[in-house]
Parts: sequence; structure tokens; C-alpha cells
Amino acid sequence: MSRVRVHNFAVSLDGFSTGEGQSLEAPFGHAGGRLMEWFFPTRAFRSMQGKADGSTGVDDALASAWDPGIGAEIMGRNKFGPQRGPWDDHEWTGWWGAEPPFHTPVFVLTHHPRPSVEMEGGTTFHFIDATPQEALAQAREAAGGLDVRIGGGPSVVRQFLAEDLVDHLHVVVVPIVLGRGVRLWDGLEGVQERFAVESVSTPSGVTHVTFSRA
Amino acid sequence: MSRVRVHNFAVSLDGFSTGEGQSLEAPFGHAGGRLMEWFFPTRAFRSMQGKADGSTGVDDALASAWDPGIGAEIMGRNKFGPQRGPWDDHEWTGWWGAEPPFHTPVFVLTHHPRPSVEMEGGTTFHFIDATPQEALAQAREAAGGLDVRIGGGPSVVRQFLAEDLVDHLHVVVVPIVLGRGVRLWDGLEGVQERFAVESVSTPSGVTHVTFSRA
Repeated sequence: MSRVRVHNFAVSLDGFSTGEGQSLEAPFGHAGGRLMEWFFPTRAFRSMQGKADGSTGVDDALASAWDPGIGAEIMGRNKFGPQRGPWDDHEWTGWWGAEPPFHTPVFVLTHHPRPSVEMEGGTTFHFIDATPQEALAQAREAAGGLDVRIGGGPSVVRQFLAEDLVDHLHVVVVPIVLGRGVRLWDGLEGVQERFAVESVSTPSGVTHVTFSRA
Repeated sequence: MSRVRVHNFAVSLDGFSTGEGQSLEAPFGHAGGRLMEWFFPTRAFRSMQGKADGSTGVDDALASAWDPGIGAEIMGRNKFGPQRGPWDDHEWTGWWGAEPPFHTPVFVLTHHPRPSVEMEGGTTFHFIDATPQEALAQAREAAGGLDVRIGGGPSVVRQFLAEDLVDHLHVVVVPIVLGRGVRLWDGLEGVQERFAVESVSTPSGVTHVTFSRA
């Protein structure tokens, strides 16, 4: 059976995975880039920007694991863009430019379905109004036997964890206190009991915590 | 100037430093011993139990730092015991037996002052109704030039952090999701900006995060 994986999912010391006040200019709200500063220097991130440089240490090793073996992604609407409610702007095709880094089908969870959008490089955005189980069934079929990544944001990761649909979870604890935003862990008391858990801190200051289905 | 220090202060991934439902049988409420499992095997803890054994690795090195140079402690009433409101039971002298491990004056913050209690081994509990600043002034005087430890619980640590009275904070991130209890970080948005922050994870699975006044 293909696995369901979450990668590179940053969370502050107080449990927030995104800040308050998302907008076109601020995809992470008031958090800005602070949750992802460990990620930006890595070769994994730089290659998404079409660059061939970047760090190749432990942060990069963890970061790079997000791609191999993935056949489809499921993401929440707030990861796709800042619009809420009915789609006023059909020109919006995500934060990632003409060639998004996914290179697979991507299922965007929304109560407002719209026609699929095919991007360059193999990414196609499908917009579906579905439960986690229904979305996963569609993503699995599209993934052709490969794994399915849950791409976030925090509400979506939380829902899939609550339904016990996640096999591998990689969170990155960033030593900042965000104070407000969207919490990852609400309603997940005891979730660690389903997993083997490992932690490693790195010189960038973050701590990678992996949850692997026991 | 003597420093104000917090040591060995455990916090769950979702930011709780104690569970819900403290009682005589459950000092940490439903959290049980799960926040302190990294601590129990250490020589630092074992020596508090009058034992000469225990681990001497990184967890112990961090844990042992709680004692040297400390001349007084300030703790909240809920760290001292499970009673609330007026003191019905004057026989209660803390969780720690006849000879508590503090060996210094200990100032217990309470809205219900009572006579001081002198224990074996140099610990004296003083019960004061005071602001953080007032309590710190008293503790500093009692400490005779040594440092003052803020012993917890989370509400007390949070108050001293909010008033910018803490010079050194050692938290231990335990990879569990407690779900409920008392949160450490509420109201402390951006607190890390006042400190130099380092993180190290250890084989016990926890991550020690130190905040040193920059």
C-alpha cells in the first residue's frame, strides 16, 4: 500500500504552523519567512528555484525527502492561495509560477470546485470538495501506486492526522514563539502513540521530529 | 547582578508544561510522568533521591545545571502542592519529603500567606503574596548575591518572562501532544528575540532549548 506522507512541516514552539493574516504578500501571515528560514538555504529549496547550489547538510537531507516516491499531493485551499469563498480570480494558479515544483497531480480541497488547471512540468491542480478519505482515494488513484503527500496547511494536516491517515510526519520545530495563527496540534492529544518518534536538532537551530507509523 | 534562571522546564509539542487535573496523586495532572521521563534516569535526579547512580550524558549535564550558583527559588503555589484557596491542611510541606532538594530559601507565591516552614537540609518555604518584581527583590536579598531560580509552574514562568525578568531559560521539548493543561507560551509572542537560542536533541528523544539573554 502506498504511504501518506507529510514533509517539511514547520511549527513554532507554541504550536503554530502559520501566522495570522495570510495575504497575497504574506503567504504565512505575520510569521513571514521565519518558519522556513532553515529551508531556504538548502539545495532542496534552491533546486525548486532552478538553482544548482545550496547547502547539503542535515537540513537538506530531511528537506530533500519530500519528493522521491510521491505520485500526488493533497493541499488545503489556503496553501494554494489567499482567496476565500467563491473564486473571484480564475487567473490565480498558486504561489509557484508557471512551473510549480510538484510535477504531479495536486488535489486542492475547497468547498468551491472549479475546472482543473494544467501547469508546466507535470503539475495539474484539481479542485475537489471532499472528505479526507475521499480525497485520499482520488489522490491514490492518481498517484499510480506511489505515495501521497499531504502538503498542508495546518488544518489539512491536522484533519488527516485526526483520521489516522498519515504514515509519515516530518515536523520542524522552529524555536520561536509566534503567538497567533493556525495551530497544528489541536485535537490531537496522544497522537504520538501511533508512531515511532525521533528528534534531531541541527546547526540552523531547528529540530526535525519524524513520526513513522509504528 | 545575580541572574534569574529557569531550568529543566519541560513543554510538550503543543506547548503545555503541565497536564489537566492536578491532584495529590498526580502532580502533573493527566500528563503523569511523561514530561519528565528524560529526567528520571539522570544522576541529577537520582541524587535528589539520595542515590549515587544515574546517567551522566547530555540530559544529565543540562539537568545538573539547575543547582550550582542558586541562592533562592521562587515557585508558584501549584508547584508546592495541590491545595487551592485558603490552606486547609497546614501539615502539607510540599511533594519532596522532609528534606527537599532545594537547600535554599524558597518563596511560594500565594494569595494566602502563612507562616514560613523550615525543612531539613536548608530549605525554608516562605509564603508571599507578591508581584513578580516584589518576589524577585525578596528572593535576591535572601540569595545573598547568588542567582535566583524560577521553579515553575508554567503560569509563574510565563509571568516572569512577560515581565522580562528571566536571564536564562532552559526548556525541554518533549515530543508528545498533551492536548490540555497549562500552556507555557501564551502571551509571549516574540519572546525569543531577547535571547540567544540554542537547541540540542538527545537520545532520550527530547530537545533541550536554551534561551540566554543576548
